[in-house]
Amino acid sequence: MNTTRTYSVKGMSCGHCEGAIHSELAEIEGVADIVVSAQTGRLTLTTEPNLDDSDVVAAVEEAGYTASRS
Amino acid sequence: MNTTRTYSVKGMSCGHCEGAIHSELAEIEGVADIVVSAQTGRLTLTTEPNLDDSDVVAAVEEAGYTASRS
Repeated sequence: MNTTRTYSVKGMSCGHCEGAIHSELAEIEGVADIVVSAQTGRLTLTTEPNLDDSDVVAAVEEAGYTASRS
Repeated sequence: MNTTRTYSVKGMSCGHCEGAIHSELAEIEGVADIVVSAQTGRLTLTTEPNLDDSDVVAAVEEAGYTASRS
């Protein structure tokens, strides 16, 4: 059963930023759905329940942005 | 002998935007150097003197932005 969690992401300014974050998150096993918006600075993930937050935060940092669970 | 020309570009918000424009312009034969800044909205090209402005404008549009010679 997947669950949904929300993060705030700092630094996104355009669709390219959204795409960079989406690409990194898509590589994480257990991530089923990704919704990311530069306009709202919100990232919503549907994932396996035991996915580690630190993996999400690290992936967003890999893309060049900062995420925190909200 | 190459010449330098400057354009104003609307819509760039980040380094990804700069990169998208740079990639399109790099495909144009006769373009020797490209400097593009989201912060200033300025694009400076060093090119062969007979390069057609419309080719530059079209390449920037291809990337999703609007350029005008300034």
